[in-house]
Amino acid sequence: MGWRTASALRSAIISYSRGFSPLGTRIRTYNLGFLGFGNVNRTLVQLLGDREQELRERYGISFRISGVASRRLGWIADPKGLDLKGRGFSRAERNADFNAASAAEAHNVRSWLSAAHADVLFEATSLNAETGQPAIDHIRAALEHGAHAITANKGPVVHACRELRDLAAARGRRFLFESTVMDGVPIFSLFEQLPAIHLQGFHGILNSTTNVILGEMEQGLSLDEALKKAQALGVAETDAAHDIDGWDTAVKTAALINVLMDYPIRLDEIAREGIRELTTGAVRNGRRDGWPFKLVCRAKRVGDRVEASVAPEKVLSTSPMGKISGTSSYIYFETDIFPGLAITEENPGLYATAYGMLADLVRAVA
Amino acid sequence: MGWRTASALRSAIISYSRGFSPLGTRIRTYNLGFLGFGNVNRTLVQLLGDREQELRERYGISFRISGVASRRLGWIADPKGLDLKGRGFSRAERNADFNAASAAEAHNVRSWLSAAHADVLFEATSLNAETGQPAIDHIRAALEHGAHAITANKGPVVHACRELRDLAAARGRRFLFESTVMDGVPIFSLFEQLPAIHLQGFHGILNSTTNVILGEMEQGLSLDEALKKAQALGVAETDAAHDIDGWDTAVKTAALINVLMDYPIRLDEIAREGIRELTTGAVRNGRRDGWPFKLVCRAKRVGDRVEASVAPEKVLSTSPMGKISGTSSYIYFETDIFPGLAITEENPGLYATAYGMLADLVRAVA
Repeated sequence: MGWRTASALRSAIISYSRGFSPLGTRIRTYNLGFLGFGNVNRTLVQLLGDREQELRERYGISFRISGVASRRLGWIADPKGLDLKGRGFSRAERNADFNAASAAEAHNVRSWLSAAHADVLFEATSLNAETGQPAIDHIRAALEHGAHAITANKGPVVHACRELRDLAAARGRRFLFESTVMDGVPIFSLFEQLPAIHLQGFHGILNSTTNVILGEMEQGLSLDEALKKAQALGVAETDAAHDIDGWDTAVKTAALINVLMDYPIRLDEIAREGIRELTTGAVRNGRRDGWPFKLVCRAKRVGDRVEASVAPEKVLSTSPMGKISGTSSYIYFETDIFPGLAITEENPGLYATAYGMLADLVRAVA
Repeated sequence: MGWRTASALRSAIISYSRGFSPLGTRIRTYNLGFLGFGNVNRTLVQLLGDREQELRERYGISFRISGVASRRLGWIADPKGLDLKGRGFSRAERNADFNAASAAEAHNVRSWLSAAHADVLFEATSLNAETGQPAIDHIRAALEHGAHAITANKGPVVHACRELRDLAAARGRRFLFESTVMDGVPIFSLFEQLPAIHLQGFHGILNSTTNVILGEMEQGLSLDEALKKAQALGVAETDAAHDIDGWDTAVKTAALINVLMDYPIRLDEIAREGIRELTTGAVRNGRRDGWPFKLVCRAKRVGDRVEASVAPEKVLSTSPMGKISGTSSYIYFETDIFPGLAITEENPGLYATAYGMLADLVRAVA
């Protein structure tokens, strides 16, 4: 903004009052629907509130929260906008009960999207790693309704990426999922900026919970004690088996392979080993000897196939992976143009995952 | 491509023969002009040849090389395409002599762009760090002619970024410069994928020549011997003062500050110190003690201003910057959403810089 002159600023303010942003963009208002209302979507609502002015002025994006749905809240919609600050969504109608994975629900999602006049769906229901449902149905419903579909749920990316992208293209809408891997760091968007490049493989550390647990085990805690500590810190979910057994990392690995290597890998094709078998002694000794354990994902093109694995590995403590501690994450891409292109995310902030969805909103409509 | 069925492939082949790519994109042919014909643009021509089929089939981009101009070759243009494989551009007309930085040249650039019917200009003349000329005039001429302007030259980004972006926007064309920092790693494009984020500062290692020289000095060579070795390896230019005195890093730092922090910093505002004063003894001792010297750039928002510096620093050998050796480079961004987002480019391939320009072509027209 430093370059703008006073007169340009003045004319910008005038055009703003006529329905244009100061940068000359026409402002459009989007109705937003939030499906699943746990941490991610609640934080997203906060972040959207925080960035409301910037979105309007810089990107011409204005918004109303016109739909919220969750198991606890039911299906709430008002095309004129809900008052989330008021108690219990005062102006909202509850037009049905939220009932996961049923024909009734599919019907409900559609009715709810219609009632909310939703232009964008933020899908943040919990992951079913084996089937990707019911999130796939939610996203399909949104795209068929004519809304952009933005998800933090890895299931649809692993199980229905191509179908949902094709559907989105056919409807002139976007299916975006930047928050599914490395919080909101724009990994998928980065590769959209790398045309005609060939990704040969990658490796990295993508799961915070196991990384925090391994760090605590290095200090002498048992797996269970370390897990409790991670839960107390708010890093691990109540049911952390998904992380500990390597499922979370495997699902992220599959999402990356599906999208970036254009290879439709199945989850059961990824050799998967979690950290459950590691003893405190082994983890301590690894760190003491300068070779700490990390839960590492690897993918590699081999002929027409892609081979992939998730497993604990001893890595050199001074190597890039050896230095990834706590909730940080790391990925190293091997491409034909850049033999080694690595991205490190250190100690993501509270807003990182929600930010990925906000950025997807801008990508979808700007 | 793995997901496509045989029948989809068949219909794709049919549509391809009708002027559509197999992915259904209509194919458009672009006339490309290359201004400056040294390493970068020559490599780009090779890379374009190598990726010709992929650009056509995946992105609907077909191209002709319709203009080449350099001091040695003069101004060569043929709107139907030059035969670069034939000797001396056999089908080409030489319509003027190349004469840098003169009124005649400005006229020549325009005549040449017209004669070539250029849709895209690849500007890769040599850098004038103090003024950015004549590259700024070349790019202005291209945009006014109605061509996209893609440059590997940092001068225009430092001295005329805003003006050229505004001109491009007014003409419905793009001014892109991804190759100017970290070869073709999409740094600028990455931040276009990070809407409503606030960059507070960055630090990193952006100059290969000094990094290679410092590595050789750690082995006991003098600065001059190390420089000769770097030149023999093809890393350093004949006139390496630009690198050794920190100009190259300072210009890249200014480009990043101008574009990513939206702050119009002047080169003389960047405190700049090169590696010329470092002795072999000091460099050897630094490495021996685990604190090697690196030429580090830093930028930081301080109130309304941005403070920046380029200087040799002792960094911990096991830190991310301590591990950047040879031609690798590194940058660490501090943002309000991601407190630490770092990108490492290890041993860029021969095609990296040229690839950045090819990717800019796709960004401009796709």
